[in-house]
Amino acid sequence: MSRVKKIVRRMKVKNELARQIMGEILGTFVLLLFGCAAAAQVKTSRETKGQFLSVNMAFSVGVMSAMYLCRAVSGAHLNPAVSLSFCVLGDLAWIKLLPYSLAQILGAYLASGLVYLIYYDAIMEYSGGILTVFGPNETASIFATYPTDVVSVQTNFLDQVVGTAMLMLCILPLNDKRNAPAPEALLPPIVATVVLGISMSMSANCGAAINPARDLGPRLFTFTAGWGPEVFTCYDYFFWIPLVAPMVGGVVGSIIYVVFIQWHLPEPEDESEEIKEQTKVIEHNNKKDELYLKMSSL
Amino acid sequence: MSRVKKIVRRMKVKNELARQIMGEILGTFVLLLFGCAAAAQVKTSRETKGQFLSVNMAFSVGVMSAMYLCRAVSGAHLNPAVSLSFCVLGDLAWIKLLPYSLAQILGAYLASGLVYLIYYDAIMEYSGGILTVFGPNETASIFATYPTDVVSVQTNFLDQVVGTAMLMLCILPLNDKRNAPAPEALLPPIVATVVLGISMSMSANCGAAINPARDLGPRLFTFTAGWGPEVFTCYDYFFWIPLVAPMVGGVVGSIIYVVFIQWHLPEPEDESEEIKEQTKVIEHNNKKDELYLKMSSL
Amino acid sequence: MSRVKKIVRRMKVKNELARQIMGEILGTFVLLLFGCAAAAQVKTSRETKGQFLSVNMAFSVGVMSAMYLCRAVSGAHLNPAVSLSFCVLGDLAWIKLLPYSLAQILGAYLASGLVYLIYYDAIMEYSGGILTVFGPNETASIFATYPTDVVSVQTNFLDQVVGTAMLMLCILPLNDKRNAPAPEALLPPIVATVVLGISMSMSANCGAAINPARDLGPRLFTFTAGWGPEVFTCYDYFFWIPLVAPMVGGVVGSIIYVVFIQWHLPEPEDESEEIKEQTKVIEHNNKKDELYLKMSSL
Amino acid sequence: MSRVKKIVRRMKVKNELARQIMGEILGTFVLLLFGCAAAAQVKTSRETKGQFLSVNMAFSVGVMSAMYLCRAVSGAHLNPAVSLSFCVLGDLAWIKLLPYSLAQILGAYLASGLVYLIYYDAIMEYSGGILTVFGPNETASIFATYPTDVVSVQTNFLDQVVGTAMLMLCILPLNDKRNAPAPEALLPPIVATVVLGISMSMSANCGAAINPARDLGPRLFTFTAGWGPEVFTCYDYFFWIPLVAPMVGGVVGSIIYVVFIQWHLPEPEDESEEIKEQTKVIEHNNKKDELYLKMSSL
Repeated sequence: MSRVKKIVRRMKVKNELARQIMGEILGTFVLLLFGCAAAAQVKTSRETKGQFLSVNMAFSVGVMSAMYLCRAVSGAHLNPAVSLSFCVLGDLAWIKLLPYSLAQILGAYLASGLVYLIYYDAIMEYSGGILTVFGPNETASIFATYPTDVVSVQTNFLDQVVGTAMLMLCILPLNDKRNAPAPEALLPPIVATVVLGISMSMSANCGAAINPARDLGPRLFTFTAGWGPEVFTCYDYFFWIPLVAPMVGGVVGSIIYVVFIQWHLPEPEDESEEIKEQTKVIEHNNKKDELYLKMSSL
Repeated sequence: MSRVKKIVRRMKVKNELARQIMGEILGTFVLLLFGCAAAAQVKTSRETKGQFLSVNMAFSVGVMSAMYLCRAVSGAHLNPAVSLSFCVLGDLAWIKLLPYSLAQILGAYLASGLVYLIYYDAIMEYSGGILTVFGPNETASIFATYPTDVVSVQTNFLDQVVGTAMLMLCILPLNDKRNAPAPEALLPPIVATVVLGISMSMSANCGAAINPARDLGPRLFTFTAGWGPEVFTCYDYFFWIPLVAPMVGGVVGSIIYVVFIQWHLPEPEDESEEIKEQTKVIEHNNKKDELYLKMSSL
Repeated sequence: MSRVKKIVRRMKVKNELARQIMGEILGTFVLLLFGCAAAAQVKTSRETKGQFLSVNMAFSVGVMSAMYLCRAVSGAHLNPAVSLSFCVLGDLAWIKLLPYSLAQILGAYLASGLVYLIYYDAIMEYSGGILTVFGPNETASIFATYPTDVVSVQTNFLDQVVGTAMLMLCILPLNDKRNAPAPEALLPPIVATVVLGISMSMSANCGAAINPARDLGPRLFTFTAGWGPEVFTCYDYFFWIPLVAPMVGGVVGSIIYVVFIQWHLPEPEDESEEIKEQTKVIEHNNKKDELYLKMSSL
Repeated sequence: MSRVKKIVRRMKVKNELARQIMGEILGTFVLLLFGCAAAAQVKTSRETKGQFLSVNMAFSVGVMSAMYLCRAVSGAHLNPAVSLSFCVLGDLAWIKLLPYSLAQILGAYLASGLVYLIYYDAIMEYSGGILTVFGPNETASIFATYPTDVVSVQTNFLDQVVGTAMLMLCILPLNDKRNAPAPEALLPPIVATVVLGISMSMSANCGAAINPARDLGPRLFTFTAGWGPEVFTCYDYFFWIPLVAPMVGGVVGSIIYVVFIQWHLPEPEDESEEIKEQTKVIEHNNKKDELYLKMSSL
């Protein structure tokens, strides 16, 4: 028993950043496994085993599960745009932005690989063995996001900025003690509901990635797994939009929240007052104790 | 650091009403952005990327998100009918009714504009470039509500009165300490569920606006953005119904709640008794302390 | 101000049963308004504004809203089968069973009437003005439940017994302090979820009334509103099944819960022990106080 | 009254394991009754009274209800793969694994029988009286899970391993005090949401049993009820996969959680420190009391 404990203690990763990276890899892995597997299920079953809404819901369950899994370890950003926003807000050290982002991309890449393995037979059956980005039997959209034909690049960019801004604007108050926050232990399902809302309302143009890692990880996987360079070149090099626009949108949404809401909320003085009162009580008790001591020395 | 803090303190809006107006603008903006964007997604994708239910759900997520965002600032009415009801109930000063309502309409107007920008390409493609209120390619219903052909004006009026009465009847108990209320920190998702229920059951006739701002803001936007005066004149000047009927319905629902439920609930005496008991304890402790003092003076 | 308070105090219904009846009427009214209105919306829109699932969901939201509305007043049974079960379990006086049931039926009747008014135009359009129980344009099933053709009377009876037994078996543990209960303030949404589950899995045969009031109230309404005696005579006098079977099922489910689960749970001694300990503390403090008094009298 | 209490006390099952078995039987019964009844409703109504998603949702409600029902009695494993995982983690005695598993299979068998009774008429109508595993009118898939034609045995095995691993990986943090857990009293709906996510994303290949009891119980029932040995021999003896793969997957998922997350979380020292502090307070109080006694003996 104590031997096992010793081994565990030795295995324990002492470096905080290493632990956080591990958490983000696993969390983003869970998020993407739910989401991409649902996309594969709906597409390869030709919507007989789910529909557009169930992909949205699966991504939402993925957000919830991933947050419960790793938020005590790494904060469960699961998204470079969220990490960047927390850097800007001063809640994450800038030095950690790149490791966090790479970890998230890696987790998304690994999950895509596993989804490909699980749905290998179904994808081959559906696509006739031809892995392609275009046409009625395309399967690339199981993994990364792609735009619809009619939408311009400016609109897609704006779409991703707005979607990610909404994400930050709606999740920042959930955990803001100065606002009227959600219960700490129920943040994951509530954040997941916000993500569900965004994917039900802002995914028609280009798939509501609102997360560079959620898009780049799977895109890299499809690039390496047989879909080829088309995943990057298609739709006039669309791939850069879900990389850049969410970073902009996350910061914009955070700033809107801080400037229009947070600045004007009452300062959290209540807490400090509480502490003061408690201090008084303690002092009072100490005084009592002194009296006892005096009396016992009579 | 302290300089930033100073700037923030100077930027802080000290006027309470100004803060509240800002909160209502942003809250209603979020509500409508989710809702109208989902309506645009479902319509322009011809129900391939969502369905009637997903518009209802997106409005519901919008209610939840908007409430978490601004209820600490402005109470998150998001709806002139709710504000009017709170005036009648004595929870909002009558002087604030107009500013609140205008703020809500402005927030709804701004959100409609942003939805139009995001879905500009899709709306143009869907409508063939002709922005109209009628026909199979109409797109006005993405924004404001319109009735179905067969329904009479009286029925639509009743429909909106009943819908908004249900809203107030079902959300007032959620926060009533004398009743068996929901957890304070979970009011937003529960209110959102009530709104979902109303839009699933009372939106067939004329779209379940149950909110003058949710309807007038987007209608004004479509009026200015190219749909023209038809948005007001169509269906025999239908537009006044979602403006007037919800105001009536909100008050009716509130009165039903107060008269049939709240009046008959036990008075919240427990709290005052608790306070009395605490006072006793304090008095008791003071007595003890006096004893100590006496003793120490022996 | 004090005059208003006086009037309110005079209006206050002092008789507990009268208050409870009022609560059950209003609660069942809300439940049925959501549910039947959703059924009307889905049917008259020919499933373009909702689907089978959205009727289930609307009934579920109705359960939640009705429970928050009246559970502090009447316990929010909303269902004679639930009231009977609580009589058997000793949580409701037998004398109250009939008044509760009649109140629930009345609430359901009134809600049906209002749904008829709201959807009058749509029902007339859908049915071509002929209110009937049979055929492709039947509209009776908006209100009461009707069986499918192929199912025998025994199967329907069993179906309703099992459905209502599941209801009681699944909601009794939610509030059982000896078990691992749900949070008191979140009972309404969780009970609503159980009801959603039953209507998604046991409504194919005969509509999952699992509630005599939910069925008889609307059936009586359609009888009086123009559908005629067919609503009672059709399907070989089917109407008695959702009246009798749920009463049997509710009791069966309650007994299964008590016998197989509750009896074997640890006695709630912890609480009494806590009380004992508190008593000790108080006694201890009293002893201390006596000491003080003695000492002060030195 | 006291006589009833005596009888109850005599009826009380004193043996802990017997109680736990009873809990697991009833819990798994409830889980399968919701799930299989929903499958029967959707299939026999030819998707007019529900769809693929509503079967997923009904299983999810079943998980929630079963957990509230029996988790105070037996821990609500409801799944031999979960029980095995808890054995590996040291939270269940190995000796209990077989009784738990048999109880779960029995509960699933009984539920299948009841679903068959309720939907007997509908199944006969749908299948034309021929109970078969293949063809457009097959009804075996109402009960047990079957693979799709195109998927290989290795893929199905991997699918079930991954699905069950995801289950354990996502539910273990929910109750881990060292992590950021969900509220104890809300574990059932959150676990149910995870199960919903898995069945929306990983049920296309072979039905997402992720639970040997959920699959074997109904399969045994169909074997005995008229579908014959084909339920075991079909698809090249597929039946062993949902028996073996989830056991592997549950352990794999648990180990991943422990190794990559739990080991690296801070030790739960806070609690022990709290206890220490409380001890101090008690000691301090004792000291005080000694002083009193001394003083009173003056």
